Formats: sequence, C-alpha cells, structure tokens
Amino acid sequence: MPNEFDFIHWLRSQQRPSPLVPLPAGDDLAILRWPANDLLLAGVDQVLDGIHFDSAHHTPRQIGVKVMNRNLSDCAAMACLPAAALIAVVLPKGASIDFTKDLYLDIKSTADEFNCQIIGGDTASWPNKLALSVTILARSAGLTPITRSGAKPGDHLYVTGPLGGSILGRHMTFTPRIHLARDLASHHRITAMLDLSDGLSRDLTHICHQSHVAAHLDAPSIPIHKDAIELSRRDGLSPLHHALHDGEDHELLFTSPDLITAPSITQIGQIVPGQGIHIGTPNSFTPLKPQGWEHAL
Amino acid sequence: MPNEFDFIHWLRSQQRPSPLVPLPAGDDLAILRWPANDLLLAGVDQVLDGIHFDSAHHTPRQIGVKVMNRNLSDCAAMACLPAAALIAVVLPKGASIDFTKDLYLDIKSTADEFNCQIIGGDTASWPNKLALSVTILARSAGLTPITRSGAKPGDHLYVTGPLGGSILGRHMTFTPRIHLARDLASHHRITAMLDLSDGLSRDLTHICHQSHVAAHLDAPSIPIHKDAIELSRRDGLSPLHHALHDGEDHELLFTSPDLITAPSITQIGQIVPGQGIHIGTPNSFTPLKPQGWEHAL
Repeated sequence: MPNEFDFIHWLRSQQRPSPLVPLPAGDDLAILRWPANDLLLAGVDQVLDGIHFDSAHHTPRQIGVKVMNRNLSDCAAMACLPAAALIAVVLPKGASIDFTKDLYLDIKSTADEFNCQIIGGDTASWPNKLALSVTILARSAGLTPITRSGAKPGDHLYVTGPLGGSILGRHMTFTPRIHLARDLASHHRITAMLDLSDGLSRDLTHICHQSHVAAHLDAPSIPIHKDAIELSRRDGLSPLHHALHDGEDHELLFTSPDLITAPSITQIGQIVPGQGIHIGTPNSFTPLKPQGWEHAL
Repeated sequence: MPNEFDFIHWLRSQQRPSPLVPLPAGDDLAILRWPANDLLLAGVDQVLDGIHFDSAHHTPRQIGVKVMNRNLSDCAAMACLPAAALIAVVLPKGASIDFTKDLYLDIKSTADEFNCQIIGGDTASWPNKLALSVTILARSAGLTPITRSGAKPGDHLYVTGPLGGSILGRHMTFTPRIHLARDLASHHRITAMLDLSDGLSRDLTHICHQSHVAAHLDAPSIPIHKDAIELSRRDGLSPLHHALHDGEDHELLFTSPDLITAPSITQIGQIVPGQGIHIGTPNSFTPLKPQGWEHAL
C-alpha cells in the first residue's frame, strides 16, 4: 500500500503549473504569490458519511464533486473567484488506493472547472467512516466581495432558481453559481448575498440578522422545484413548505435596489425595516418561523 | 442546544480585531487583506481520536493544543509566521457545548501566542469519533521560506533538540520552534528544513529525496531524549532506535553550509552526494532504512 509521501507526490503530479503557486503541495506548506490587488477570501466546509452523503450509495465521484462544489458555492455567495483549495480526507481503514485517487481526481476536476489549484492535502485513515474537509482560498478579482450584511429596506429580494426537494438528488449535483454571481455583481448593485445551504427561511434569517432588517416574502412568487412537488406527493407537506425550508439548494439569495430581470432570476420579496420574516401576498402577511437544516451541535 | 449560527457568533466574539482580517468568520467566507510583500504559505493537518490522541485520556485542552501546534510547527519548518487558521471539527453526537467551547478556546489561545487569527470554523456532529482539521495560512514576513529541496553536498545537518519517545507524552505538548526557525533563517544560510513529525530516518529521507542528495548521520552525536531512554527500558529497543525512528518530536531538522553553534542546536551529520542515508561514526557507516511513523492509506 503506498504511503502518504507517495500519494502526495502523485497528487502533485496531477496539478498544472500556475504562476499563483510557486511551490505546490509536497513540502511542509505550499507557497502562493497572492495577487497584490486581490482580497483573500477563505472558508472551510466538510462533508461526512451518513450525514451529507452515504458511501453505500454515492460514488467517490459524487462525494468529491459535492464537497468541492459546496466550497465553490461559498465563493459564488461572495461573488469572488476560487483560486486554491486544501483537502483533508479521513479514510475508513481498508479503503483502496483507487477509491482515494477517484475521490481526489473528482475533487480536482471539479476545481479545475474554475481554475482552482489543489495546493494541500492531508490523508489519514481510521476504523471509522469517511470524512472530508475542504478549505477554499478565493480572490476578489476586481469586484468588491458581497457580504450578508448590506441589505437595506426597499431592496428587492431575489433567488437564482427553483427551490426545494434537493434531497431527491440535487444536493449531490448542484452547480455553483459563480459565473452568475460575478455577472450580477458586475452589472448591478448587489447589497447582500449568500448561497442557500440551510433552506430559504433559515438563510434569509441570516441576511436579516446580519443586515438588521426584516423581509417580506411573496409566497406566489417563490419558484418551486419539481423535486419539491415530487417530495410533497410522498410526505404530504406542501411544495411551498419544501421550497421554504429544505436545505442544500445552493441557489443564490440576494438583495438589490435594482430591478433585475433575467431568465434565471426571480424576485420573491422585499426588504423592509424591522425584524423577522413575513410571508403572504402583497396585502396579507403572516410571520414565518425559520426551519430547515439546523447544524445542531 | 445552540445551533451552528450561534456558535460561530460566539466564536467570532472571541477574536480580537485585526487589520489583516476586515471580515472575520460569520459570513460565507472570511476576508483577509494579504500584505503585498508577503508570500502566502498554506497547509492542512488533521488529528483523529484513537490515532493522534485518545479522547478517553486527553482533555479538550490537550487535543486543541496539539492540532494547532502541529500546524504551527509546519510554519516553523518553513521559517514563516502564522497569520490565520480555519478549523473543521466533527464532534461525536452528544458532545457538550462546554467540551466544544473548551476545544475552540484552547485552539485559539495556542494560536494567539503567535498572533494567528481564527478566521473560519465548520462544526458538525455524527455518531462516530472526534476529528479535527486545521488549515494554516502563514506569511513569509521578510524571510525567504525554507523548503526541503535546497540541501547541498557539504552542508552540515542539524537538529534543534533531543529525539525519541514522544509517545510518552511530548507528542501532545511539544513547542513549535517558530521563533528559533526565524532566528536561524535570519542569521544563517539554511538550505533545507522540516519539522520532525514522521521520525528522523523518514523525514531525513524526505530532505534527501527532494534535494537529490544523501546523508551521513553521526550516531554518537544524535541527541537522545530521556523519554527514549525510558521507552527503551520498557520495550528493549535501543534509545538510538527510538531517536532515529519515533515520530512526533516536532524538533526542526535542517541543513546549512554554516557552522552553527547554539545551546539548543546539535550537528548530527553531513549532506553528501548520492542517495540514501548512512549511519555510523566518521570512519564506518552502514545504510539506514527509513522506519518510523508511516501514514499508510
């Protein structure tokens, strides 16, 4: 069985040279020459067997793609460009080298789509389940990063795609909206943005808390994914309930004073003064309690 | 039980403001203003319950200190200064909020000693064991980072402290040699350096491979830790065997054409042309096979 040293050597051999990375993985630390005009954005996100995927059902390709795309989606949420990633993998004892290579190669090919270099890896094994964490480093690349805290009363509230029912499969296969986010931030005043990972009701609460504002959701406008309708048939909850509270859509939720019309963009409400979220039609609103995916400790 | 949002809010409240970090943890990504003259060094390292520590015996304080110090020791190995860290924690189901806070606070206080900001955290739980990964971001801060690949025939080989037997306790409590590394790199021509995590024989092999050189170890010069002597009494292997092959000493191993004399520095051999490591006295050398901690997949 190859040891960690051989594996890192192999991993390094998979990377294309980049002027950003004078020294790639394989030493104690990798070295990057960070562009002088670029802010550096950084975050970490992990996926666990039995929680975020099921290794009995999902292939290494699907698992690798998901963990990388979750991090790329965080880049979309800030309208920045991914630059480099570091991967920590804990393998179950006895995992094959082919499984591990597949996992890394699929993480890498997903990162490659956005010119993101894999600059560090740590691989260990234990007699427990598979766990992966990815740290992403991203560049502002000419645009001011968009936080969650800039929403203002009067802003319109938008979403980039239909919501709900991602558990039927989309939570493994979503597309990070990086190009769309960059395009939006280049052409419009985007005041707050995030990617919908915890569910619309919970993530909108994050924007409201961090911007010190409230929101009115226009129920009939919320785009419902066909997966939400399918799930509704199975569990009896309404399609709207799934669109409001299901997690892992990874569409962008954002606010802007601009009226934005584009094929994939739907206005779903308004930012107002105050606290909390209300939902209804323009003439009749009721309070909406955040539900959805809660990362309970 | 507090949810992840509250926890990140708490974590953020523990950090001191820093000009390096205009936006700390709590948004989709943190934002850093990377110093224009600094190279960015980055790496990831993880510790697992039952492999790198034992949660039945070690306190959250010990575990948090170890995972952070492993990453700080990687900074020492490159002679750079830690700047920021991101932490991913997987908690066993039912871990208390106090345990988690202790873990983070001890990671943080260890990082604080080197003015290293915690800029990101991801916390999840599962019905398995505790796992932590830390990504470290470091600054070159006026010194050229020292890699493993610059050793030249004729260089002297040095180590910064006595070796062996760290499993008796030092593997949890070692001191990252950051100040010493910066001091060495400021005053001497250091051609290659790493921190001893896998054991002298294995780590010296890394330097030899990556520098395309060989090494002669002077057996009588190798400083033996008293823990190696204690362990030798228990298992019958020689103290020198432990000093050569035990892992997790986290002293620095480095090469230099300069004759360096300092209280904590010991010359233990010489870099020569060729391949492999030989050990003996100046007049009689035999080949040394790398052993020690192998991170087998």
